[in-house]
Amino acid sequence: MSIKTFLIGSPIESVKEKHERVSKLTGLAVFSSDALSSVAYATEEILIVLVLAGSGMFRFSMPIAIGITSLIAIVAISYFQTIHEYPSGGGAYIVAKDNLGENAGLAAGSSLLIDYVLTVAVSISSGVAAITSAIPFLHDYTVILCIASLLVITVINLRGVKESGKIFSLPTYMFILAIIVLICVGLFRMSSLPHIPHPKEVQTYSGLMMIFVVMRAFASGCTAMTGIEAVSNGIKAFKSPESRNAGITLTWMALILGVMFMGITLLTDRFGIMPSESETILSQLAKTVFSQGLFYYFIQGTTFLILILAANTSFADFPRLSSIMAQDGFLPRQLANRGDKLVFSNGVIILSIVSGVLMVAFSGDTHALIPLYAVGVFLSFTLSQSGMVVHWLKYKGKGWVKSLIINATGALTTAVVSVVIAGTKFIHGAWMVIIAIPIIMLITKKISRHYQSVSRQLSIDNAEPEVEYAHHSVIIPISGLQMAVLNAIKYGKAISDDVSAVYVCLDPAATMKLKAQWTKFGMGVPLVILDSPFRSIIEPLMDYIDDVRNSYQKGVITVVLPEFVPLKWWHHLLHNQTAIFIKGIILFKQGVVSTSVPLHLRD
Amino acid sequence: MSIKTFLIGSPIESVKEKHERVSKLTGLAVFSSDALSSVAYATEEILIVLVLAGSGMFRFSMPIAIGITSLIAIVAISYFQTIHEYPSGGGAYIVAKDNLGENAGLAAGSSLLIDYVLTVAVSISSGVAAITSAIPFLHDYTVILCIASLLVITVINLRGVKESGKIFSLPTYMFILAIIVLICVGLFRMSSLPHIPHPKEVQTYSGLMMIFVVMRAFASGCTAMTGIEAVSNGIKAFKSPESRNAGITLTWMALILGVMFMGITLLTDRFGIMPSESETILSQLAKTVFSQGLFYYFIQGTTFLILILAANTSFADFPRLSSIMAQDGFLPRQLANRGDKLVFSNGVIILSIVSGVLMVAFSGDTHALIPLYAVGVFLSFTLSQSGMVVHWLKYKGKGWVKSLIINATGALTTAVVSVVIAGTKFIHGAWMVIIAIPIIMLITKKISRHYQSVSRQLSIDNAEPEVEYAHHSVIIPISGLQMAVLNAIKYGKAISDDVSAVYVCLDPAATMKLKAQWTKFGMGVPLVILDSPFRSIIEPLMDYIDDVRNSYQKGVITVVLPEFVPLKWWHHLLHNQTAIFIKGIILFKQGVVSTSVPLHLRD
Repeated sequence: MSIKTFLIGSPIESVKEKHERVSKLTGLAVFSSDALSSVAYATEEILIVLVLAGSGMFRFSMPIAIGITSLIAIVAISYFQTIHEYPSGGGAYIVAKDNLGENAGLAAGSSLLIDYVLTVAVSISSGVAAITSAIPFLHDYTVILCIASLLVITVINLRGVKESGKIFSLPTYMFILAIIVLICVGLFRMSSLPHIPHPKEVQTYSGLMMIFVVMRAFASGCTAMTGIEAVSNGIKAFKSPESRNAGITLTWMALILGVMFMGITLLTDRFGIMPSESETILSQLAKTVFSQGLFYYFIQGTTFLILILAANTSFADFPRLSSIMAQDGFLPRQLANRGDKLVFSNGVIILSIVSGVLMVAFSGDTHALIPLYAVGVFLSFTLSQSGMVVHWLKYKGKGWVKSLIINATGALTTAVVSVVIAGTKFIHGAWMVIIAIPIIMLITKKISRHYQSVSRQLSIDNAEPEVEYAHHSVIIPISGLQMAVLNAIKYGKAISDDVSAVYVCLDPAATMKLKAQWTKFGMGVPLVILDSPFRSIIEPLMDYIDDVRNSYQKGVITVVLPEFVPLKWWHHLLHNQTAIFIKGIILFKQGVVSTSVPLHLRD
Repeated sequence: MSIKTFLIGSPIESVKEKHERVSKLTGLAVFSSDALSSVAYATEEILIVLVLAGSGMFRFSMPIAIGITSLIAIVAISYFQTIHEYPSGGGAYIVAKDNLGENAGLAAGSSLLIDYVLTVAVSISSGVAAITSAIPFLHDYTVILCIASLLVITVINLRGVKESGKIFSLPTYMFILAIIVLICVGLFRMSSLPHIPHPKEVQTYSGLMMIFVVMRAFASGCTAMTGIEAVSNGIKAFKSPESRNAGITLTWMALILGVMFMGITLLTDRFGIMPSESETILSQLAKTVFSQGLFYYFIQGTTFLILILAANTSFADFPRLSSIMAQDGFLPRQLANRGDKLVFSNGVIILSIVSGVLMVAFSGDTHALIPLYAVGVFLSFTLSQSGMVVHWLKYKGKGWVKSLIINATGALTTAVVSVVIAGTKFIHGAWMVIIAIPIIMLITKKISRHYQSVSRQLSIDNAEPEVEYAHHSVIIPISGLQMAVLNAIKYGKAISDDVSAVYVCLDPAATMKLKAQWTKFGMGVPLVILDSPFRSIIEPLMDYIDDVRNSYQKGVITVVLPEFVPLKWWHHLLHNQTAIFIKGIILFKQGVVSTSVPLHLRD
């Protein structure tokens, strides 16, 4: 058994896209890990921004959380509509492309591809932070733990995951349970605490500056919303009636997300928990509520698991989206065939490498990655909702005005938030994404143009049948007489009656010796000796080929290259690659074809 | 002008190995930068070992320096003999191979190749240390400065250095001047100091332990001797009488080296200078003697320059030695042709990459690299001197007994020192070299065996003239009808009368369409439709090829592959590589040749 087989599993024989249909309960687990897991870091991201501006700013954390929760409601209601209008799956790429045109579709697609990469990076680094918070001495090994987790997820996905709802259900519901218990017990404990009002710190900020800080904290907290669109991509996986079940699941997800996010933020605020370099907010909160008992470790463990699951969902989403975009001719064809295990692997490997590079570049630090995260998500929200607005205007249908208003509200709100995120986090990293999106769009357009051009050039629609070549000459460049050359001469004689061997003379003595041997081994093929005043081998040879080509203008030439095939790959490194060089030049000569005749070495 | 031309210069037209013959004065500058520059770090390396064992151990620094200086004398006298016996250049590889056989030669060669890599790494990192000692804020950028210096040297060498003695003379003599002035002024200042006896520290070490520390310090100081063999490699560069002039130059070099080394060590001792993380001993000494005036910066500047020159000599030595070893069939042939700029570049690039990796891995820290350094040097000394001993025993000649005794002394002394270095620095890094030398030897022997085997297999000495093939079939695998396929059919008809096109049927409708088009475009070539129960394209095709091969056992088959050649390299990434896959399989089939017929795309 090879290492590859061991790691990746046997090749899949017959290709079936068999999805078990899921119930609402399982669907919630399958599609919500990305969204729900973000409560593990969203509150912390808000506080990190506020703490920089002074702990007096903490009083804004709850208002911000309320704002974000309202946003969750708006976006969820918007997507609820999409689910019913695009029952076969309405990802932002499809909705935007259908309604707003190619450019909007590509912008949404590029944003989502970036988003999937960042989901992997942020979720894994945040999951590892949950572990290192509980077991502090692991903190020094953050990057190694991140990469190890990434490798495990990658290998699992290369083996091909059966998207079994059961695998997802347990950690997701355990996480929900853990957080709900944490919030309940926390609220109970809190009620016995005296209410400490926020310190009225001396105001060191101007009003404008304070607004900026609050907006930036809000922008950071918006990472809570990543993944909320997942259900709308997977409608077909639900049991019938699909759209209705998906919609109900989406509603539940938004509710649970809102409750957990608000609860954690409220408790963090009331218990006066401060962000720390080495321990997450959630870990501190759990310690405060439960002290360091078994339930504390349960919370940290389930947090790690759901974050790893969240990363894992991107390993399904990224190859799927790139396959759709490749089928539309915007990404390399090798990514296109759905269900082909090899093709799927390409997407998995690309995603794994890019997110791995990100985690190493940012030292596995969640906070450093966050500013890159939300821009793409909100841009795709905006494009998707705007697409829906256009959709209603075009097709109208029952109750379209109400639907239009809902989606327009969603589009407007997310557009404003996109601008807020891009503006307040620009220098902290959002600029990278703002640059990357148009670059990816440009690449996809170039790819599309190339495919169209190739298919035009290869088309036989206006072609006439070909006429046969009037002549076929064979030229065999040789550097001496050895077994590979004998092999090449024999082959040359089999494919043409006009064969000549060509030798570039660098040393008259060697030439004399060659001529003497030629009578015995030449098989009657004429030997052409070329002079080389500048000791170059390539130039006289190419000149000779051009001469022959000019003599038979309607003919074709085959340059037969004697070659030996070594037994081991590293042997290739030990031989001069003149033949490859000659082939490279001939490749661009019209009417000349090159052929290597291999002699197989035994040792 | 391309970037490559800008950086590397135009290709050299005619190849000349033109060496200006050098006088003794210039020769000293050209060949001694490696040896002399080592005084910049040798004293420091001794003190670093002693200081770890307590400052009371410093009293051993002068005795150790005297020991090393005696060793310099012994080795110099030994090499003096080699110079007269091997007037065409007696590197350790040649002397050891000639007299002790292949294994000894390869051991010496491998040691020297490692040594050249380390000379680059140690010299550059030490040169950068001279700069960062003078300009402390650069200390944080040590690795970047090392790599930048390496890149500059690499580019200069890829352009091809005219080994102009003038370039070398100025920095070398300025450095000698700077150090001699430093020593003279230092001795003058010293005389006015009260002599402070070394503190009699409480003895915390056992006698054995002390001996070990002193031996380790001695081993570290032996880095002063690296490069002493350079003159013996370059005898032919001297004006006539070559050997005599080279011998005199060697003598002078050894004298200057001894004086500088002893002087620096004495002053360091008397001024009580201690090794420091951020400033070299030499920099501290210069500051103590001159305070931080202009002359201080002159010393640091010339130190940097001569160390860079020392690194540069390895860029001449490494490609030269690898060329000699490649000509003997022990290294890849691409390194063999002397004077070929391209070949020379291979050596330069390899040296640059390996030494760059070393500097990064060791963070540009000279002290960390030193334990790796001297092992290879002394092993090559030992082998070279032992070779001379055997040489005298074999050829005798005038005064051979005296010569034998000298070389035997040299061999014995350097052998003992080799063991001391390997033993005392084993765990600090010497083990890497001790492992690397046999590994490189093994690789060279494998390479040599491969070349011999290939030349045996290709030899026509016992071959009979070939008989013609009885038949030639052409098979054209197609995936549909497009321009590239028409092109391939036309070519196939030109090279054989027995042509068939093969199509693997995956979709009956597409097959029907193809059959309909075939009558118009097929040029009379029969179309073979193959079924594929497992939807594989490769397997039915290979089975068909094997069938044809069995039908014409004395024939040959050409598989003609339609291919299109995109205009830009990145377009290749956008197309399925099925053709390459097929070619890869066919390459190993006896009696089957594959040919790509290119259709050139215009866009």
